Amino acid sequence: MLNKPRLLTPGPTPLPEQIRLAMAQDMIHHRKSAFKLVMAELQERLRLLFGTAQPVMPLACSGSGVMTAAVTNLFAPGEKVIVVDGGKFGERWIKISEGHGLQVVTVKVEWGNAVSVAEVEAALDAHPDARGLLIQNSETSTGALHPVHLLGGLTRARNMLLVVDGISSVGISPCPMDELDIDCLVTGSQKGLMLPPGLGLIALSERAWAKAETVPPACFYFNLLSERANCLKNQTLFTTPVSLIIGLNESMKMFMEAGLDTVYRKQWALTMFARTSVKEMGLELLAKDRFTWGLTSVMLPEGIDGSKLLEIAAERFGVYMAGGQDHLKGRAIRIGHMGWVDWADLAAGLHALAESFRACGGYIGSRDYLEKGLQAYHEALLTYDGSM
Amino acid sequence: MLNKPRLLTPGPTPLPEQIRLAMAQDMIHHRKSAFKLVMAELQERLRLLFGTAQPVMPLACSGSGVMTAAVTNLFAPGEKVIVVDGGKFGERWIKISEGHGLQVVTVKVEWGNAVSVAEVEAALDAHPDARGLLIQNSETSTGALHPVHLLGGLTRARNMLLVVDGISSVGISPCPMDELDIDCLVTGSQKGLMLPPGLGLIALSERAWAKAETVPPACFYFNLLSERANCLKNQTLFTTPVSLIIGLNESMKMFMEAGLDTVYRKQWALTMFARTSVKEMGLELLAKDRFTWGLTSVMLPEGIDGSKLLEIAAERFGVYMAGGQDHLKGRAIRIGHMGWVDWADLAAGLHALAESFRACGGYIGSRDYLEKGLQAYHEALLTYDGSM
Repeated sequence: MLNKPRLLTPGPTPLPEQIRLAMAQDMIHHRKSAFKLVMAELQERLRLLFGTAQPVMPLACSGSGVMTAAVTNLFAPGEKVIVVDGGKFGERWIKISEGHGLQVVTVKVEWGNAVSVAEVEAALDAHPDARGLLIQNSETSTGALHPVHLLGGLTRARNMLLVVDGISSVGISPCPMDELDIDCLVTGSQKGLMLPPGLGLIALSERAWAKAETVPPACFYFNLLSERANCLKNQTLFTTPVSLIIGLNESMKMFMEAGLDTVYRKQWALTMFARTSVKEMGLELLAKDRFTWGLTSVMLPEGIDGSKLLEIAAERFGVYMAGGQDHLKGRAIRIGHMGWVDWADLAAGLHALAESFRACGGYIGSRDYLEKGLQAYHEALLTYDGSM
Repeated sequence: MLNKPRLLTPGPTPLPEQIRLAMAQDMIHHRKSAFKLVMAELQERLRLLFGTAQPVMPLACSGSGVMTAAVTNLFAPGEKVIVVDGGKFGERWIKISEGHGLQVVTVKVEWGNAVSVAEVEAALDAHPDARGLLIQNSETSTGALHPVHLLGGLTRARNMLLVVDGISSVGISPCPMDELDIDCLVTGSQKGLMLPPGLGLIALSERAWAKAETVPPACFYFNLLSERANCLKNQTLFTTPVSLIIGLNESMKMFMEAGLDTVYRKQWALTMFARTSVKEMGLELLAKDRFTWGLTSVMLPEGIDGSKLLEIAAERFGVYMAGGQDHLKGRAIRIGHMGWVDWADLAAGLHALAESFRACGGYIGSRDYLEKGLQAYHEALLTYDGSM
């Protein structure tokens, strides 16, 4: 009774009551007209979100499922792809690609850094026979934001496909697919879209569709050509998670009513809030230059146990954050501020971070880290200029 | 306002309010302790439902996804399998198997019929090099119930795996996996389990696990060995549809409180109700001998348009049923009576069927098809003996 539980992980996120209640309605059948009407409305909204004229297809799977769908439908075994690997999800592109029998060239980036355009260009030039570039927009394991908005020209010029994991960026920061010459954009339901996990979304450019038509089918369950044919009839190839589709339509209604610009502005301002506060506390940010707008990763000083810190934050303050992954386990904290999270939730999260850090023996330099963070938030709301 | 909508399709089914409200709770994180407690409780309940000592793994996918997982994890490309094909979902086993590069031997069964043990035995004897037998328990496209309870001895004796699609039978009629020597049992959330679509469930026998360990990984997303390792820690390999897991736990709580015997008794009695009424109407049943307990398929006489009949039932009576599939499109009606459907819902469905049939120009022989059906229902509740 002392604390309300606050979910500040980088997905899943808290859900608006409006969406939870829409999903709590009794079932409708996925092959009947009432469902097709929902799909038609949803499709129009999703195309605005993705910034594409192409269909945006919902698949019944997690983020890793929709990444698998992208790789297995766009490339044939034996083909070469270039993967930017700057974290756990870069590694996932590699595992999926190798599992599918592709030749993988890796552009390795230190955890926390965004890849530079020059590094990508050098790899593309060194491997002109590569058929695609696979990259995260936001690398959820570190909080780095790769500059996918600067890569479309490079891949187009070389007749390679630009395949972007937008799982923790779609609905969080701008990633207009057609404008950026992105050939494949995927996302999941449980991050910026304010939904439970269970739904993947994927869209392909015209070029990508042409390529997909030449690739032999790999996994029966992930057949994008059949999904497209169904999507154009407001249907799905297989039975779809009906309640999540209804929730997604409600979510997209909220997005459209607020306007995408407002959503991105809010996400940018929350990020400024988190980064300012963390710096005021005297803690180090993991992603320094280009950072995602949906989570903030904090490095802990030597001797502070991150797992214990997370436990204290949950038990004493009701705040659930995530730790670092793999070699950063116990050494970093990831505060999610995506989805149905606002400034007051984030203030609670940052206070819990500071107090739990203290309880672990850490020293917090500033007493006004919240006030300064909130000022940065308000200023960012006013000065946000829509840049990527 | 005249009719309440009644979903009587063979999945998805109506959902109990208790489950819908459990799923409407705000999100929890799938890697935190609150979720692990849910998974531990769920696991115990699912093992009772499946009748197995092995873990029952939830996957984020539709029924076709979990069928794909079974095939690609249990058999290596080039291996031979025998598929019983008595409808659209038998065909799906074939497509998935062929897509995975297996040699497929088909035991073709006329739509509506259940395969005989002798037919299966002949195929097994003719192909001693086959590594598995793939079959539906309930073939949802026809309503036939294949005698999987009589096949385990045959496959064990020949060192073949018995792989059973229980999508429209698990939670509907008894299919105790370990007792029946079934090596792989799969189901989906949206049929007997009273949940929205979006979750597949799969369990493997010890023999099947031993075989799976020898099969090279195929599709990155469907990795049952890793799923098992996670499941044993009350986790999932990838982000799981948290709200569906919570709903499934609630559903299993309802199952355990009622007792499996009560659920099967109810399903058997509903089936007797539907079959008696349909016969009284003078209509023909598609599945004559061995029939599933979750839906009843009705053949329409020449000259009656099944699609029009379904439209009338929906528009005038608020009753949503399904039509025949493929060559039975427009010629058959499938009334679902699985999941959160009781005798009064089914009475509404059967009345809508009769009146819509009349409106299409059909002739209903009996005026007491409901009364007779209900008597059959009550009698079946009393005489049900637990046989399969």
